[in-house]
Amino acid sequence: MRYELYYWPGIQGRGEYVRLALEEAGADYVDVARTERGTAAMMRMMEAGSGTPPFAPPYLKAGRLVIGQTANILLYLGPRHGLSPKAEPGKLWVHQLQLTIADFVLEVHDTHHPLGPTLYYEDQQSEAKQRTSEFWKERVPKYLGYFERLLERSGGTSITGRRLTYVDLSLFQIVEGLRYAFPKHMKAFERRIPGLIDLHDRVARRPNIKAYLASERRIPFNEDGIFRHYKELDV
Amino acid sequence: MRYELYYWPGIQGRGEYVRLALEEAGADYVDVARTERGTAAMMRMMEAGSGTPPFAPPYLKAGRLVIGQTANILLYLGPRHGLSPKAEPGKLWVHQLQLTIADFVLEVHDTHHPLGPTLYYEDQQSEAKQRTSEFWKERVPKYLGYFERLLERSGGTSITGRRLTYVDLSLFQIVEGLRYAFPKHMKAFERRIPGLIDLHDRVARRPNIKAYLASERRIPFNEDGIFRHYKELDV
Repeated sequence: MRYELYYWPGIQGRGEYVRLALEEAGADYVDVARTERGTAAMMRMMEAGSGTPPFAPPYLKAGRLVIGQTANILLYLGPRHGLSPKAEPGKLWVHQLQLTIADFVLEVHDTHHPLGPTLYYEDQQSEAKQRTSEFWKERVPKYLGYFERLLERSGGTSITGRRLTYVDLSLFQIVEGLRYAFPKHMKAFERRIPGLIDLHDRVARRPNIKAYLASERRIPFNEDGIFRHYKELDV
Repeated sequence: MRYELYYWPGIQGRGEYVRLALEEAGADYVDVARTERGTAAMMRMMEAGSGTPPFAPPYLKAGRLVIGQTANILLYLGPRHGLSPKAEPGKLWVHQLQLTIADFVLEVHDTHHPLGPTLYYEDQQSEAKQRTSEFWKERVPKYLGYFERLLERSGGTSITGRRLTYVDLSLFQIVEGLRYAFPKHMKAFERRIPGLIDLHDRVARRPNIKAYLASERRIPFNEDGIFRHYKELDV
């Protein structure tokens, strides 16, 4: 079965967590909105009068299923591609961690959009500075400290201690994104999360991930995505 | 089996979506943090060096499982208590809707905390006014319009068209919360979501929910929770 991934064609964004899982799995998929007339097809599916129309991208078409919400898509893909346990307890635990990452991703987004997603960054720049300061002082240590502790406890090979899961791929993306958006902050912070940095490096060396990152399928970071580099916020 | 729910004892917050499901199901549960020394027990579980320590409340102890993240708890409870389909496609769809509600709940929280969750409301009051204005202009119509359309399509008895699910209970809570926090805004807006208002009223009349709402187990809304009434934001 060829999966159809629907996500905004110009950014990594939330779709990237799904792309990383599909790439690591070597799954057959098409990134629909990056094909001709693909974005129009994506918009039509959200307006569908029947079936399970998603609220927002990303969503995945898998045969007759249309699955929305990043973590929900990974919940579906994980056990099918060896990227999460198949038994319920392990599946719920990995999903719980992914939902915690989703919460963190939303807080990353709020650093440049504290007054809401529909206003321009330029119109909320001073608020963005305040929110970013709070983010690095309180939120990054809390979230990444949590994952670092879990990694330590696991022995350090993967977050759940045994096999690689989609959560490890997502944590790779978090480190990549923070390095892109906040290089100065991150440079100072990385010594506090040696386990996560090591995990990041090991994920980056995996053959399928390495090939993906070097390909055109990996969209470069930019200032339309979740992780945005604004010099004035990285001080 | 007696479930143990762990959540902050003084607020409805995110725990309320779980409480409503447990109450509708007539499940045997104890709201641990509301019992003597319960909050200390809750804090200890988050610091656990083994098992599946959650990042934050709410979490549910179900036998030997400890399940965190509101939507994940409902994913677990739903099929066990007739509050979601048992087959995967329906289960994923209901979960997807719950995750969309979770996104909306976070935006509700951001109306009074746009500069971050660790600063006081009083220190971000003018930013809260701006965010709230955006919230009512753009975000409420987008989210509640989505659910209203799904309800219309379903025929109006429940969001998935057939049986009541935990999503219907959560939508009841959204209407209750918006009415408490923003009575003026909501009064003007309700005519645009007749289906959701009707769903709210039907949920409120269900015997188990009615008994719960009249009991001391239902914590009143207050200004420590997600839905907060600040007069200056409801203009």
